[in-house]
Amino acid sequence: MGEVGIVSFGHTKYGILKDDTSNLIGSVVEECLSRVEKGIEPKEIGLVITSCADDQFSNQHQTGALALRYLKNLDAEAFRVEAACSSGSLAVYLARKMLNAGYVDNVLVVGFEKMSRLPTEVATSVLIRGGSPEENRIGITQPAAYAMMAQLYMEKYGATEDDYAKVSVKNHNNALRNPWAQFHKKISVEDVKSSRLIASPIRLFHCSPISDGAAALLLSRRPRDYTDTPVYIKGMALANDTLGVFERDDPTSVAATRKAAAKAFKEANIEVKDIDFAEVHDAFTPVELMIYEDLGFAGKGEGYRLIRDGTVEFDGALPVNVSGGLKGKGHPIGATGVGMMVEIFLQLRGEADQRQLPDVEIGLAENHGGTGATSVVTILGR
Amino acid sequence: MGEVGIVSFGHTKYGILKDDTSNLIGSVVEECLSRVEKGIEPKEIGLVITSCADDQFSNQHQTGALALRYLKNLDAEAFRVEAACSSGSLAVYLARKMLNAGYVDNVLVVGFEKMSRLPTEVATSVLIRGGSPEENRIGITQPAAYAMMAQLYMEKYGATEDDYAKVSVKNHNNALRNPWAQFHKKISVEDVKSSRLIASPIRLFHCSPISDGAAALLLSRRPRDYTDTPVYIKGMALANDTLGVFERDDPTSVAATRKAAAKAFKEANIEVKDIDFAEVHDAFTPVELMIYEDLGFAGKGEGYRLIRDGTVEFDGALPVNVSGGLKGKGHPIGATGVGMMVEIFLQLRGEADQRQLPDVEIGLAENHGGTGATSVVTILGR
Repeated sequence: MGEVGIVSFGHTKYGILKDDTSNLIGSVVEECLSRVEKGIEPKEIGLVITSCADDQFSNQHQTGALALRYLKNLDAEAFRVEAACSSGSLAVYLARKMLNAGYVDNVLVVGFEKMSRLPTEVATSVLIRGGSPEENRIGITQPAAYAMMAQLYMEKYGATEDDYAKVSVKNHNNALRNPWAQFHKKISVEDVKSSRLIASPIRLFHCSPISDGAAALLLSRRPRDYTDTPVYIKGMALANDTLGVFERDDPTSVAATRKAAAKAFKEANIEVKDIDFAEVHDAFTPVELMIYEDLGFAGKGEGYRLIRDGTVEFDGALPVNVSGGLKGKGHPIGATGVGMMVEIFLQLRGEADQRQLPDVEIGLAENHGGTGATSVVTILGR
Repeated sequence: MGEVGIVSFGHTKYGILKDDTSNLIGSVVEECLSRVEKGIEPKEIGLVITSCADDQFSNQHQTGALALRYLKNLDAEAFRVEAACSSGSLAVYLARKMLNAGYVDNVLVVGFEKMSRLPTEVATSVLIRGGSPEENRIGITQPAAYAMMAQLYMEKYGATEDDYAKVSVKNHNNALRNPWAQFHKKISVEDVKSSRLIASPIRLFHCSPISDGAAALLLSRRPRDYTDTPVYIKGMALANDTLGVFERDDPTSVAATRKAAAKAFKEANIEVKDIDFAEVHDAFTPVELMIYEDLGFAGKGEGYRLIRDGTVEFDGALPVNVSGGLKGKGHPIGATGVGMMVEIFLQLRGEADQRQLPDVEIGLAENHGGTGATSVVTILGR
């Protein structure tokens, strides 16, 4: 496959915003177009793919067609895709497929979610849809499902509540440098451990928040027509697993991420040691340690060592979630995967301002749906 | 592009069913696999695309991953797509794109909707999401939007309430022959004209119902490996228009259908006269007359002549909606487009039992979202 390049982006602040679905989509579409360094005409964009997790949040069907209003090209094709929390990366995945097949030359991807439209108790009943029907039926919410994984991981491998808390502390620290982040609040291990218990061992400060937000990317088959400094998708894969945690042989691993990572590394023809930094799916911070293992950053049962020894800190050897992650930056579901790639785009171009990492050439994004029934792993490079 | 073939199908009854989302998906996946004449192993299916219009109906995210449970192949890729009422055809459209690009050899498409999960007044607030944000905000429901189109069409072109009623009568008559149809109830023009007024000139008996149901199709790059009598996709296109009726130059035409039809006919390299029969999107029966025009079956402002002169009746020269259409067969949204193609598959193979049309070789499906912000036109042949 040829290399598809990212040439521009749009990104709102993440948080509780006044904007509705239309405003969110419109603002990132217009920003993304206006940032194209060598300029682009709407008619050059043949396809728009939107992503959001839930219609009850967006209160809008056919958001693809809605995005065309802001693109100002009704002759482009448009549709929406969904795979729960991995919806944003799914949109990029399909955009790349359509580009590599030569169906279109440029695709605009728009991820968004308007979660604060609903009261929190209703939002919880929406979010439970990310799990299996059986989990849903007996009231196993997303934090409860992740709690089972986190509890088992502690028992089997010796991770501690302090390890889990340190992931939250790291990601909040990183969010301090990110103007788009929902939280700009330094927290301590003690703050996390004394926060409200949600589903043991998961506490409030392990949980990503209810967020509104949007992110857009412009992808091209001929990226140098639009910028001298594109970021290329070197490898990318989507993989699936069972919907329910209870159906899995090993609930301490996100098998879909493991499968997708293997494929993405193979396609990119690189090894784990070549990865300079990563954005991963810390919807609940304990899972970040398991993802280190599924991506090959650490051996099985050894992920927590990377948070203990500082490897994954901002100034460590392999920084993870320098954006603040889902925990610190926020998690407007359909935007999340797209926003991860915006972060990597900026880092690789040296445009990440006060959170810029030195000398980075290869970044990885890991974005999974629910507790991992869908996962997309993307490897990006200059 | 090479010719992608349909090799098998699954289809539930449409109506108010006891089944939940899982049952609906599971039953058509299993039926579709079991109907493959030369047999198929789950591992031969590399991708599953699901379609439904709304998460509040399905109460489930990641239905792609859920379908893999019934496929019994967790190594297949899976995701869901949405474009309101055209979601089902969108899924087939993308399946074909992935097949033609050579990414996979076989794709399973599963369309479904579980509308009766919600009380009717809540369902109405869900369905309003199919229109534009402005229409949504001021309470212009789908029947109200279609009513404006139907009113204008009468004023401009001389169609009458009798013409609209006759479309409902025809589709109910056709549904009598379809065991899957939601309604098996013969109605008269007088029944339609005396039914409850919803939004003038639209009455209850012009409206497609709240339906549950599912339909599946197996598409292949090598269809003859699986059946000696595949049905080929000769031409297929997706096109878009404004979300809102108020934004359109001509609200008496579904411009997206017009654009998609032009592309699909060109790709299939056939003319309108080559079409033997069609399934079209009669979500509200007046629009069926406009669709005749947008597909080229009649000149502008002359669509109603085809219902007056009997052309589109079961025994006419160009039968339309022999399945019963959305009005008579039912409209479980995400299933609708897939179900249209199941009907054409059966007709072209001579397997449509008591509703079999004689000597049909080419069939057309037209499936649009909302009032036509998205439209997919598909031309199928042996």
